[in-house]
Amino acid sequence: MYKERVNRVAAEMDKAGISQLLVTDPDSIRYLTDIYNHPMERFWGFLIRKDGGNVLFANRLFRLGPVDAEVVLFDDTDPVAGVVCPYLAEGTLGVDSTMTARFLLPFMSRMPGLRPVLADACVNDVRACKDEEEQRRMIESSEINDRAMEKLMGFIRDGVTEKECAEFIMKCYAEEGCPGNAFTPIVSFGANAADPHHHADGTVLKDGDCILVDTGCVWKSYCSDMTRTFYWKYVSEEDERIYNICRDANLLAEAEVRPGRMFKEIDLTARKHIESFGYGPNFTHRLGHSIGLADHEGEDVSSVNDHIIKPGMCFSIEPGIYLPGKTGVRVEDLVLVTEDGCRILNSFSKELMILGK
Amino acid sequence: MYKERVNRVAAEMDKAGISQLLVTDPDSIRYLTDIYNHPMERFWGFLIRKDGGNVLFANRLFRLGPVDAEVVLFDDTDPVAGVVCPYLAEGTLGVDSTMTARFLLPFMSRMPGLRPVLADACVNDVRACKDEEEQRRMIESSEINDRAMEKLMGFIRDGVTEKECAEFIMKCYAEEGCPGNAFTPIVSFGANAADPHHHADGTVLKDGDCILVDTGCVWKSYCSDMTRTFYWKYVSEEDERIYNICRDANLLAEAEVRPGRMFKEIDLTARKHIESFGYGPNFTHRLGHSIGLADHEGEDVSSVNDHIIKPGMCFSIEPGIYLPGKTGVRVEDLVLVTEDGCRILNSFSKELMILGK
Repeated sequence: MYKERVNRVAAEMDKAGISQLLVTDPDSIRYLTDIYNHPMERFWGFLIRKDGGNVLFANRLFRLGPVDAEVVLFDDTDPVAGVVCPYLAEGTLGVDSTMTARFLLPFMSRMPGLRPVLADACVNDVRACKDEEEQRRMIESSEINDRAMEKLMGFIRDGVTEKECAEFIMKCYAEEGCPGNAFTPIVSFGANAADPHHHADGTVLKDGDCILVDTGCVWKSYCSDMTRTFYWKYVSEEDERIYNICRDANLLAEAEVRPGRMFKEIDLTARKHIESFGYGPNFTHRLGHSIGLADHEGEDVSSVNDHIIKPGMCFSIEPGIYLPGKTGVRVEDLVLVTEDGCRILNSFSKELMILGK
Repeated sequence: MYKERVNRVAAEMDKAGISQLLVTDPDSIRYLTDIYNHPMERFWGFLIRKDGGNVLFANRLFRLGPVDAEVVLFDDTDPVAGVVCPYLAEGTLGVDSTMTARFLLPFMSRMPGLRPVLADACVNDVRACKDEEEQRRMIESSEINDRAMEKLMGFIRDGVTEKECAEFIMKCYAEEGCPGNAFTPIVSFGANAADPHHHADGTVLKDGDCILVDTGCVWKSYCSDMTRTFYWKYVSEEDERIYNICRDANLLAEAEVRPGRMFKEIDLTARKHIESFGYGPNFTHRLGHSIGLADHEGEDVSSVNDHIIKPGMCFSIEPGIYLPGKTGVRVEDLVLVTEDGCRILNSFSKELMILGK
């Protein structure tokens, strides 16, 4: 399986006219070799060479396993350029967007003829289309996420804090056997929801607050990610209005997802709906992002991405409306692209729900 | 305070002959502006220009606060090079080691005369020497860490798993009011301890196992980090031997820490001690790393770092001996450099402790 994945990447390199590709994204290396390390500031790279063998570069501290490549080990005190450059050829070198200057600039100093170009699309395009086993894991990961959201309904109560809710969700994941969460759960009450990336804190739930919950787990290495927004005791007219606009934007966009469409068409479907009610400036981010081994993968569902949607792709659809100082709403599912449409991986209700009544 | 920090960085730029420095490390930006964002794949940068005003570049999604700089906002759909390059001059541009190719390569394509050089030392050298308030937080953070280790002593029992211990420690931090841990606690039983970066899993404690615990919390934004190794019911002769060698390496190295010494001298003190007993090849990593706002900061305590130790610096001293398939040991404290030596921030005992007797 791993060999076949590497072959598919090599085919993409061929199309892009790249004869050497240095993969440094730990999730991409895991995808291609089944070996995962979290290198922090250390170097960890997998070199794919069209006219020669592949090479895995690993600090001696890292865990390794069987791999179809030459393995080059080094110590903390070895200069990385001295270790890696002898395996590179002058000319174009494909690198990941996430490769850091720490390594890139010394490579370029040592090899003035090296021409690094962003080429993670060669791996990302392969990673984007999930195979059968990956799809199964994505589905299961979102099933766990739906169940955690359901359990949270029974936990939310007068006096509860955002942080307690976030911790409860993480406990639900642990009870299901997940090794962790895809990201720290976002739980935002009332005006805190106007910040799309609010960190759950000691804020206590008040009557009339919105309750925005954006969360995901990791299941067999694959991430889930969903958002629901609820209301406590009652809902204001304005909250109800923006909830319905946002939820409809989510439904309209999801209905458009199918092979052959461009990502930007999906974004614009949601965006135009929100704009038509005058809330365009309050939808401050792209509609979604790819997901899989990582919570955020290569493709984004944005108004400028004209890439084509293909079967097996998995991404989020998450319109939001944020009213600074007042409230916010976001409604997010993951979708998995099928042959003629998409499967929505979250089945948790999107009807407006007033809790605590 | 922030203005003074920026001025100190500007002085370092002057010494290094750098007239423009683009800071992208979120912890460095927080250090210089009091604003923190976790940008993930989005751009977040603070440009320090010797002959002009400073500029903060922020995605509209990010949180901002008052800042002594021009603020340039952009959207997810704006090409970042188009936003940032108009503020850069051709010639040398200092960048962080952690700056990614995603931005660096488009900047270089757009400005062929740009010469990026690694220059995070300009910020790191300032960050390295903690001021009084920072020192107080580092001390408190390690006090919390000592107490968590103490509480763990009462939790370890027959049948306990690594993961349960790791979760217990995180609960201790939460009870102390910490917003989180500096990194996922490493808890390794028996042969698992031979992997310095083992992830706590469902492994159950067995008689005669070593119990390696490497953990740290975040307190008022500042990290702690310590390691202790215990034994369950009894200790084998070999474990006792490597424990004493490792602990003595820790003590010898800490005794050498004072202003004016080179980092590599400290590393070599510990390394030579371990080598003298034949375990050199089993001490597979550097002796330590700087710490503060981030768990791993700029300086490393390694055999090749000839930088000079200064008052106010804070770093780890963590020799280890790893016997693959069998066992491992590591003994780690944080030290804070004083005018004539150092203060060891962890007071938890380093005597060999056999638990469960």
